[in-house]
Amino acid sequence: MRIGLLGFGVVGRGVYEITAAREDMQVVKVLCLEDVTLPDAEVTRDYNAILADDTIDTVVEAMGGLHPAYEFVRGAIEAGKNIVTSNKALVATFYDELLPLAESKGVQFRCTAAVGGGIGWLSELGRARRVQTLRQVGGIMNGTCNYILDSMTRLGLTYADALAQAQSLGYAEANPSTDVDGIDTWHKVILSSNIAFGISLEHDSVPVAGIRSISAEDVAQFTAHGYVCKLISTGKRTDGSYSVYVQPTLVAQGEPEAAVPSNYNLITFIGDTSERMSFYGQGAGRYPTAYNVVQDCVDLLEGNGFYSVYGEKIKAVNDDMLCYYVRGAADAWLESNKADAWGEAVITKPVAVADMHAWLKNHPGAFIAALPIKN
Amino acid sequence: MRIGLLGFGVVGRGVYEITAAREDMQVVKVLCLEDVTLPDAEVTRDYNAILADDTIDTVVEAMGGLHPAYEFVRGAIEAGKNIVTSNKALVATFYDELLPLAESKGVQFRCTAAVGGGIGWLSELGRARRVQTLRQVGGIMNGTCNYILDSMTRLGLTYADALAQAQSLGYAEANPSTDVDGIDTWHKVILSSNIAFGISLEHDSVPVAGIRSISAEDVAQFTAHGYVCKLISTGKRTDGSYSVYVQPTLVAQGEPEAAVPSNYNLITFIGDTSERMSFYGQGAGRYPTAYNVVQDCVDLLEGNGFYSVYGEKIKAVNDDMLCYYVRGAADAWLESNKADAWGEAVITKPVAVADMHAWLKNHPGAFIAALPIKN
Repeated sequence: MRIGLLGFGVVGRGVYEITAAREDMQVVKVLCLEDVTLPDAEVTRDYNAILADDTIDTVVEAMGGLHPAYEFVRGAIEAGKNIVTSNKALVATFYDELLPLAESKGVQFRCTAAVGGGIGWLSELGRARRVQTLRQVGGIMNGTCNYILDSMTRLGLTYADALAQAQSLGYAEANPSTDVDGIDTWHKVILSSNIAFGISLEHDSVPVAGIRSISAEDVAQFTAHGYVCKLISTGKRTDGSYSVYVQPTLVAQGEPEAAVPSNYNLITFIGDTSERMSFYGQGAGRYPTAYNVVQDCVDLLEGNGFYSVYGEKIKAVNDDMLCYYVRGAADAWLESNKADAWGEAVITKPVAVADMHAWLKNHPGAFIAALPIKN
Repeated sequence: MRIGLLGFGVVGRGVYEITAAREDMQVVKVLCLEDVTLPDAEVTRDYNAILADDTIDTVVEAMGGLHPAYEFVRGAIEAGKNIVTSNKALVATFYDELLPLAESKGVQFRCTAAVGGGIGWLSELGRARRVQTLRQVGGIMNGTCNYILDSMTRLGLTYADALAQAQSLGYAEANPSTDVDGIDTWHKVILSSNIAFGISLEHDSVPVAGIRSISAEDVAQFTAHGYVCKLISTGKRTDGSYSVYVQPTLVAQGEPEAAVPSNYNLITFIGDTSERMSFYGQGAGRYPTAYNVVQDCVDLLEGNGFYSVYGEKIKAVNDDMLCYYVRGAADAWLESNKADAWGEAVITKPVAVADMHAWLKNHPGAFIAALPIKN
């Protein structure tokens, strides 16, 4: 395999290092805007030098961001090159374009490192689909949020201090919005659901609530009631109807999710014969992410392509009925659905997920967290 | 694929049910001593009827036990049939015979369900080996022991009551020795280490301590010191030397292992690029186990054979230095290695794992548990 590598940052450099030790694949050209010299690969600032190189059969995209990653990947597919990418925003956003295009061009497309970093999550979804119907996917998919929530819970930090600590450790970006507002998790659960269920979700039908508004007082309430707050994604299939959403969720102390420390991920699928299977590991970082990029390259060499089928466009209905902790806003709807109070926060009666998120859109400063379903 | 199924108990019946819905494989003959009639498979009490059937290309062994499973599997390999088995005792015990024999006969051999039930553990070890060197494998591999230890810790039960409850739920057998004495975990860590490291361990060099002697007072001490006791297996490679052992181990509350409830498993590998990856799920049960048996059949159809290479015979050295909780026996060696006391139990200075287990062999009524390594 002769690889054109787009990007030479955290992940790209890791891919270069791991492949350098292998005989079955070789990075021959690297797209990089900085001054880098490599012993056995040509470094170029010109994407077209990679596109036009007919000896390159596979493009590994490790740039991140939507543009120009989208244009470059699209161009590579059109030029008949296989694609391996770790870019969840790219694949989730342009799923409807890139997957059918790759299929029509007869090129392979893999993106295992896009969800869970080093966890072989998407490849395991593909494996699971061979034998069973998947019912549910989701879990803790964002290490930045987990680090912040874990620090607030275990060390009693404020949100601002926990975020600052995450930033100083390199776990959060200067502008943390993509992580703390749940966008990263949203991309990941859309992509996971598409692959697990063989569908293509309408993005607008998947609501997301982040952790930006959580306070130390919220966390103290959760602890007092025996709960730990985690940012949890959910994708469920029930009788051909789908519920897919991202929201802060209370987990009972003693549950596996409650024990996930620092910036780790814990991702779960439920299948009708395997039952619950969970995967725990580093959801980011140079080598874990590069590890799964190289795994994808090995899979291409072994003839294993995309994990799933590209399926019909689906709107998530989100009619699950959940109780919520709601703080920071009040109105008649909330009052009419009030079942209890924890400090200044309202605990609702069971309400539809779609209704709770519609309410939150009109009260953007509020903080919500779903309570666990009582068995 | 035309399958001869050996055994029609918990796992065998599950395999039959899952394959019945598939077009790419069919159970055509079932070896079963009971009166069973199946709509689309012949039931026989005669193993030779399966062996002599040239239309059967794959034998699925779901009988359990060493004999006659060994003779039947060996015969099937010699007859040129591929093997899928969920029998960890068989594969661990006869690794040196069955693997080279299968290789010499050009037949494929898979046993994913043998470790972790429904967890795709061995298949993921095979995947990991494609890209990286594995450094460590192990974890909670026995649901029966986890159920007993979890009930003692969370509910304050005695060992006898926890065992009786596990038996009444079908999680433990009438004679629980294989589980509570750690033999099941011992087979699993030997098999996992062989596959992860491409070696063949000398069984006698792998020590095992079980949970039979644990008391409610031991558990109370662990809780008071912030620990949860789990039966943990360890297989480590360090500079070409191997340490492999099974023993009760104290885990700090808040660690992922400490949160594993009921009869679940949590199994982990550490690789030099993926870093830590853990797998959580049902380690037993009809459908999870049958799920991985059928996955193996799909892998055979896709041309994926054994996970690893059959490697050289290795003695584990077990020179890791650990501190232990030791209760129920005393002698000069223990006294000379005493660092502290918890109630009537001794906490040792760091001692070699091999030395601690050699001592335990001479004090079979004692209970030992390794303390976590302080960072």
